[in-house]
Amino acid sequence: MDPLESAEQPGVVEQNVRRHRAGKIESVTDQIGQEWPVALVFNGISHAVMMATPRDLEAFAVGFAVSEGIVERGSDIKDIEVTQHPGEIPHAEVQLTVVQQAFAALKDKRRALAGRTGCGVCGIESIDLLDLTPERVPDTGFLARLAPDAIARAARELPARQALTRLTGGLHAAAWCDAQGAIRHAFEDVGRHNALDKLIGQLVLDRTDTTDGFVFLSSRASYELVRKAARVNIPMVATISAPSSLAIAIARQAGVRLVSFCRETSYVDYDTQ
Amino acid sequence: MDPLESAEQPGVVEQNVRRHRAGKIESVTDQIGQEWPVALVFNGISHAVMMATPRDLEAFAVGFAVSEGIVERGSDIKDIEVTQHPGEIPHAEVQLTVVQQAFAALKDKRRALAGRTGCGVCGIESIDLLDLTPERVPDTGFLARLAPDAIARAARELPARQALTRLTGGLHAAAWCDAQGAIRHAFEDVGRHNALDKLIGQLVLDRTDTTDGFVFLSSRASYELVRKAARVNIPMVATISAPSSLAIAIARQAGVRLVSFCRETSYVDYDTQ
Repeated sequence: MDPLESAEQPGVVEQNVRRHRAGKIESVTDQIGQEWPVALVFNGISHAVMMATPRDLEAFAVGFAVSEGIVERGSDIKDIEVTQHPGEIPHAEVQLTVVQQAFAALKDKRRALAGRTGCGVCGIESIDLLDLTPERVPDTGFLARLAPDAIARAARELPARQALTRLTGGLHAAAWCDAQGAIRHAFEDVGRHNALDKLIGQLVLDRTDTTDGFVFLSSRASYELVRKAARVNIPMVATISAPSSLAIAIARQAGVRLVSFCRETSYVDYDTQ
Repeated sequence: MDPLESAEQPGVVEQNVRRHRAGKIESVTDQIGQEWPVALVFNGISHAVMMATPRDLEAFAVGFAVSEGIVERGSDIKDIEVTQHPGEIPHAEVQLTVVQQAFAALKDKRRALAGRTGCGVCGIESIDLLDLTPERVPDTGFLARLAPDAIARAARELPARQALTRLTGGLHAAAWCDAQGAIRHAFEDVGRHNALDKLIGQLVLDRTDTTDGFVFLSSRASYELVRKAARVNIPMVATISAPSSLAIAIARQAGVRLVSFCRETSYVDYDTQ
């Protein structure tokens, strides 16, 4: 098939499956979350391939570039072009044009790291190159303004924003919430770090003040999610499932408030801020 | 602190947290899953850093080397040495000595790929380099021998093997099951691909026939899990949560049977074999 430019994918594909239940077999049409290889190409040089759900790929690419420190700010990105390649193994390519300074820094970094790519972790070749000492996020008073029931409200509102998860039973969501816990944006992806990158990218594209809200994630809290949030000065990360030890350690270093096991009536606070 | 050799970590760390429930706050001791950077070093050259739970690191390194195609077989690994570095950001290093042929191939591949690392996906720099066309796994008759209630039995038995998940609420498990669905081995990790690599590594270390059983995973089925299983000729992958579109496509190409949403009374069959 010919490449398509910018036609939005549905995020799910239909497939006939056989459902086995209590010894009976039923043929049904099922909805499956789309997972595509998505290449991120900076000024013509392919930098990383992420396995992602092919929706909101512009926001995804902007978020990845910013949260991985490839560009300092959204205005460093001069052009974005998404090309889709349907076919037996459908995939997509996002071509970003970044300012010369960012591209030179990326080339230098690539030379130094000889292959730092991907989710910001598993591409690292040596522990000395891991970026485990984030700067502290600035305190702009958001946590003091946070409503006592903000986490409960976000937990209550999130399911209504997870359209693809309802269809497939298996995507992650990342939402942006205000001080009252109202959800302003939500993105879904087969990868939790991709969902967060799509969200961060949208905030950057909208020039939203990232110090004035929190992210609410349907997933567990692992290292790279806290690291990405810290890089754009988000003051709080709330997750539905458990945190890892390194997520807590990085949140503490960055002064990001981390709360997990968030439900309508309860949550756990790790006192990291 | 001084580095430690081979002292087994508990997989969890204790921490005081504040639990908020229905407006009340309680200080409690919580168990957190350990997430450490673990460097995999082949013949002295650092190849990848994975974020993993620091247990069963020998099996993990063997499984990673085999499932990522760095070595052809377990006997290509001549020596393994695990060193732990406790401290503020605790981490570990696994030094593998592999036969010269495998090391030469790895160096060639690294030169060609200029940085293929990590989970086998996000380290890839360009889509052309993605290995999306697995060879078909050999049919040794396992699926014909599979008991009708094997998936139900594995689903029933798995929770008893998830000790760290019970403590923390947040790790993944990968189990090896026989044709009756009895669980023979189970490994846990903060990363689902790491749990699978630990399992594959143990099978390789034990010289278990990998064509004579199936893996049962507590997670969703994504591309890389099916790809790893296919590389060691495992005939079936069963998961508790949803598959992605690419997981199904790769399972079909490799002839691996993929079943998901596995419960004691039901599962979904994607007819991939």
